[in-house]
Amino acid sequence: MDKHIEALGHDTEAALRQKIDGKTKPPGSLGRLEELALQIGLIQGTLSPAVKAPHILVCAGDHGAAKAGVSAYPQDVTWQMVENFLAGGAAINALARQAGVELVVADAGVAHDFGPRPNLIAKKVGAGGTASYLDGAAMTAAQCAQAMANGADVVRDIASRGCNAIGFGEMGIGNTASASLLTHCFTGAPLVDVVGRGTGLDDAGLARKRALLEEALTRHPDPQSLSSGRSGDQLVLNVLAHYGGFEIAMLAGAMLEAGRQRMVLVIDGFIVTAALLAATRLAPQLLDYCVFAHRSGEPGHAVQLDHLGARPLLDLGMRLGEGTGAALAFPLLAAACAFMNEMASFESAGVSAKS
Amino acid sequence: MDKHIEALGHDTEAALRQKIDGKTKPPGSLGRLEELALQIGLIQGTLSPAVKAPHILVCAGDHGAAKAGVSAYPQDVTWQMVENFLAGGAAINALARQAGVELVVADAGVAHDFGPRPNLIAKKVGAGGTASYLDGAAMTAAQCAQAMANGADVVRDIASRGCNAIGFGEMGIGNTASASLLTHCFTGAPLVDVVGRGTGLDDAGLARKRALLEEALTRHPDPQSLSSGRSGDQLVLNVLAHYGGFEIAMLAGAMLEAGRQRMVLVIDGFIVTAALLAATRLAPQLLDYCVFAHRSGEPGHAVQLDHLGARPLLDLGMRLGEGTGAALAFPLLAAACAFMNEMASFESAGVSAKS
Repeated sequence: MDKHIEALGHDTEAALRQKIDGKTKPPGSLGRLEELALQIGLIQGTLSPAVKAPHILVCAGDHGAAKAGVSAYPQDVTWQMVENFLAGGAAINALARQAGVELVVADAGVAHDFGPRPNLIAKKVGAGGTASYLDGAAMTAAQCAQAMANGADVVRDIASRGCNAIGFGEMGIGNTASASLLTHCFTGAPLVDVVGRGTGLDDAGLARKRALLEEALTRHPDPQSLSSGRSGDQLVLNVLAHYGGFEIAMLAGAMLEAGRQRMVLVIDGFIVTAALLAATRLAPQLLDYCVFAHRSGEPGHAVQLDHLGARPLLDLGMRLGEGTGAALAFPLLAAACAFMNEMASFESAGVSAKS
Repeated sequence: MDKHIEALGHDTEAALRQKIDGKTKPPGSLGRLEELALQIGLIQGTLSPAVKAPHILVCAGDHGAAKAGVSAYPQDVTWQMVENFLAGGAAINALARQAGVELVVADAGVAHDFGPRPNLIAKKVGAGGTASYLDGAAMTAAQCAQAMANGADVVRDIASRGCNAIGFGEMGIGNTASASLLTHCFTGAPLVDVVGRGTGLDDAGLARKRALLEEALTRHPDPQSLSSGRSGDQLVLNVLAHYGGFEIAMLAGAMLEAGRQRMVLVIDGFIVTAALLAATRLAPQLLDYCVFAHRSGEPGHAVQLDHLGARPLLDLGMRLGEGTGAALAFPLLAAACAFMNEMASFESAGVSAKS
């Protein structure tokens, strides 16, 4: 695993701020758009930031624990939704298309044989999905490493198409449960605060999910180490393998590669941010490349955002996953670049400055 | 003034909700996008809502009170910014272009002779801007009616181009001061709570603005009537004429016409919402046609939103005006329509429903 990500240079920061403040508007009046323009400019090392060939990578995988009843939906929905992605009928298809963002769908380990499909990236790690963390580790260390390497491979390929901004999405029945366990382990927040209704559990379902996940925590061979603050790479990878999904590990690897490629990372909701918690433990400087698209309705997302010190752009009460929040954020990135590149300055437009 | 606006029919509501809930996603998981789809569907009376030929109308005008020092910028900035709009170099040009929204700029009464210009709608009510409300009424009743009629004319013309969704923006040095007075009168909120820094006053400038506006309130011939809860049309028009700007009155008239045309109205920030306060006093059912684009950084905007019971889509700390917040909201409207029209249903996609 290559986790070397360049820290953002700040050589251009003063010039970027000067350019932003010279635009024909009261200083600071474009709010978060100005922060975005600065961040993208720093990532790209330019005074003329641009979003090129934007993509969203959706990774799908199945979870052994799903069969124990941690979701409101049956496990078959994972492959059925992948079929829906391939047919163009899911929410992420509509929203990515509308935003002019190319969608890439990867099978990280769905419990279904899709056969060869032209628009599905076949990166199955385990043909039947992960094992259940209720019985032991969800995946082996080798499987976890493979899933991460697969994510990096896909992002390298996307980068070769000229993409400099990538959103992340996921599909996997049961993956809010996995994300809850990872979030507990990586943030130290009480499990109860990071377990939510996912796709829509009722009160009884939520109570059952909480009990199962409390139980899962006791099955880790070294439960004390998880909240000990130790954060060596091995511990991070161990936690990811123990509780993660294949799609989550693939996303973590994809994110690290996107950082290596100096892309802008557009982070979606609860599950994607769980992958980012792992990735930023391995390479903290990755955070500088991240734009947080939206605040998910899943309660654990707020805990993750606080932990990372992140402020999302949108807060629309969405909790769908698939990268749908990320898709909605791309027009804001484009708007930030547009004002930087297309607006006149006070000087060029002959507009009087503040008295 | 024709203020007859049809109340929204709810014949299609049940069918719209059924279509939204039948899409391949957990019920409610698209959050505010689902509410938007429902609202646009109700406005358009269809299960297949669509945004067609979207426009933003920016009205510009000058304020007599600007010379007394209620703004951080000199009055000349109004016409200079109109020139900037016409040259394509302002923030609203960049953001409207990026969102695929057509921009229409109207001179409601800027203190400048632009001469005939192909892309400026000439609707000057007073050649020197309004009178100062520090001396008396900003405009006569006839001028106010003319400005409102001008707004309606422009919207009728925009509607004839096939537009069914219109955003509103404004330019006018001193117009946050005017909007503060109107907001105080129409909401009953204490003046101090609705006066802010506008384009960027310092503490001394803010104190001066507050003192001037307190003084302006005493100059109304019938100050008690303003907060008496009386809301006859004559009182509303009297307040609008006394404290409004030509651009604000033009916007109020434009909004009423947009409602008559059953357009979706995309409401920007503090000044545009001040115009809406007047328009909805005259025709309360207009509110059903409004989408609130963003929460402005100008503090009085929160008071207006609370008064109207409105929840804006975006909260990006922007306070630029020009319709820039409205421009950023259009992609969300398009996304709401896209999911309604392009997503598969559980049935059509063969996806299992919630267990």
